[in-house]
Amino acid sequence: MFGRAGRAVAIAGIGQTRYGRREERSELQLAAEAAHAALADAGVDPADVDGLITYTLDPADEIGMTRSLGVRDLAYASRVPGGGAGSLATVYQAAAAVASGACEVVVVWRAINQGAAYRYGQPQAGGTFPVGGGTSSLLWCMPFGAQAPATWAALAIQRYMHAFGVTNRDFGRIAVLHRKHAATNPAAIFYGKPITLEEHQQSRWIVEPVLRLLDCCLENAGAAAAVITTLERACDLRQKPVRIVAGAQSIPPNVEVISNYYHEDLTVMPEAVGTAKRLWKQSGLTPDDMQVALLYDAFTPNVMKQLEAFGFCKHGEARDFVADGQCELSGRIPTNTHGGHSGEGYIHGMNLVTEGVRQVRGSAANQVKRVENVLVSSGMAGAIFSRA
Amino acid sequence: MFGRAGRAVAIAGIGQTRYGRREERSELQLAAEAAHAALADAGVDPADVDGLITYTLDPADEIGMTRSLGVRDLAYASRVPGGGAGSLATVYQAAAAVASGACEVVVVWRAINQGAAYRYGQPQAGGTFPVGGGTSSLLWCMPFGAQAPATWAALAIQRYMHAFGVTNRDFGRIAVLHRKHAATNPAAIFYGKPITLEEHQQSRWIVEPVLRLLDCCLENAGAAAAVITTLERACDLRQKPVRIVAGAQSIPPNVEVISNYYHEDLTVMPEAVGTAKRLWKQSGLTPDDMQVALLYDAFTPNVMKQLEAFGFCKHGEARDFVADGQCELSGRIPTNTHGGHSGEGYIHGMNLVTEGVRQVRGSAANQVKRVENVLVSSGMAGAIFSRA
Repeated sequence: MFGRAGRAVAIAGIGQTRYGRREERSELQLAAEAAHAALADAGVDPADVDGLITYTLDPADEIGMTRSLGVRDLAYASRVPGGGAGSLATVYQAAAAVASGACEVVVVWRAINQGAAYRYGQPQAGGTFPVGGGTSSLLWCMPFGAQAPATWAALAIQRYMHAFGVTNRDFGRIAVLHRKHAATNPAAIFYGKPITLEEHQQSRWIVEPVLRLLDCCLENAGAAAAVITTLERACDLRQKPVRIVAGAQSIPPNVEVISNYYHEDLTVMPEAVGTAKRLWKQSGLTPDDMQVALLYDAFTPNVMKQLEAFGFCKHGEARDFVADGQCELSGRIPTNTHGGHSGEGYIHGMNLVTEGVRQVRGSAANQVKRVENVLVSSGMAGAIFSRA
Repeated sequence: MFGRAGRAVAIAGIGQTRYGRREERSELQLAAEAAHAALADAGVDPADVDGLITYTLDPADEIGMTRSLGVRDLAYASRVPGGGAGSLATVYQAAAAVASGACEVVVVWRAINQGAAYRYGQPQAGGTFPVGGGTSSLLWCMPFGAQAPATWAALAIQRYMHAFGVTNRDFGRIAVLHRKHAATNPAAIFYGKPITLEEHQQSRWIVEPVLRLLDCCLENAGAAAAVITTLERACDLRQKPVRIVAGAQSIPPNVEVISNYYHEDLTVMPEAVGTAKRLWKQSGLTPDDMQVALLYDAFTPNVMKQLEAFGFCKHGEARDFVADGQCELSGRIPTNTHGGHSGEGYIHGMNLVTEGVRQVRGSAANQVKRVENVLVSSGMAGAIFSRA
């Protein structure tokens, strides 16, 4: 796509706050701090920002961001629905805005502060997933007693377990992998705190027999941001540009966000299959061309489904692929090298973007050697980041 | 901009529901009906839609729309913040998405059903303007007793009245103009119901001495939609394509949405000045090249401020410009030819888009002769529609 029409596009900067359990600051403060850091990383004057894109669920306001950053005249503001599943669409849409000439410098961000006001792991009142967030179908689950994301997700995952004889112990290997990567990533909430498979198996059930506590993403606070501009401009900036060679969303029929059990075959993730198809087509690349995969992990089983959807292994074979160590740093496709959402922190997909950029730059804590291309997927959306 | 990078873009179809006071149907039903009508108008198979863009405030869900329309695989979903002020950004962002090749056929829509659940004219509970809607600054007004849009807007308008000796009677001429246009537009809620200036002056105060009832947009139900695709594809479709030759947003420092009284000079609308600057620059056109102006009118004074911001008359002269009949069908710049938001209906900016397309096509109820270019503005965003 990028290059098919319009200008070539790159990520010129990334930034983040400290990731922690709680922050005594608003999401707007966190978002502004991450955006400032990303602009400083790129060497771009905040006044020059003319596009702001975040999630429908983000409490930081574009007008507040304009003030906080000192933006001269914002030319493009939008929000992506679908929660974390849609998160990579912020990058994709920023790329489209820049490619078309609609704007020049876009900041994408996500700020989260799960404390008293909202906790995604708790039963959800209507306000957490507001009207217009692309998540209203979730509300249909609630009268039936399914009140929180883990419950919604577990229903479809159980079908996958049944079809391929997968157990919660198999999911545990992903949790262990994430914590292993987090343990050597100083920015991770679980820095220095690896776990064993037995510890995973001893953590309490959230939804038996599918998800234990250590299969779930963290409830935490923090923000991450990225600066997207033309490849041409990025080449003159402070950092080595990371080119966005492909970007896509996919929402096929009867797909929902977490309550995703109305489509034909619950053992596949059709939105990730659709995203994969578009990314490979746009870029002309294949799974074999990727050196790192960063896969959205609200819950550990989602990593398996995306490994299959993107073709890193065959349908039903992710269990063995993971057990064989193929997602390790030394494996076929090092996966969630930052520690994922259960190890580094839950910045709702945006910390897949920051890690993707670091891996292409060569500056990741758990750096993979000779990275040319990184696949970044949030399920319903994805992108390929490449060396410019 | 469009043509500066990427592919040329056009509006290929428009559609709408009946506009009325109440509907016993959900916003999703209204949105789907308007979208179906727009696709039928264009002659596009709904399965081919791959982009959906609406407002952060719209209760219809993109996943519900995908199901309702029978979309094969959605490739682009986003939402525009800023309420009605940002409404034209749906068109602008759809144009950018198509220009860049990110998608091929975008439906933009707005569905509104002001009844028991929400009425914008009433004191606002938090839920009506949810977190992430780009309107959170409005909430700061509420502890001070300013609880509804008319109150918020009136504060800044009063400064304009003071500076230029404008009275509510002057605003009344816009209300009369809108009702005159609505009276001959069969799709308008006030079809066949013109008013006199005396009737306007007898309507009750909403915020004395600024706004009377007949200065305010309607509380009503209905939906409108448009189909945006490449100019090349549009040329092969059912209708004469309407080219989008320019599109822009502008949010300069310290601008807010309705509570817009923190910027330097309250007698101007800096976001409209910024939008104007970008539209004239992109298109190479001037106010003299426009044959019709469609200007967002939550309240009648906003029309005056936009007439000045876009350069149809000088700063402070809109009162006389309107009184001289320059916004009439026979005047210098026929304005809100459909009847505006106080005459045709309040579809929150999206019915500016449908009227703009009709005027370029030559199919409007109050058709202006020899239309080449139409300016469509929602204040914080705008576009120029032209004959292809």
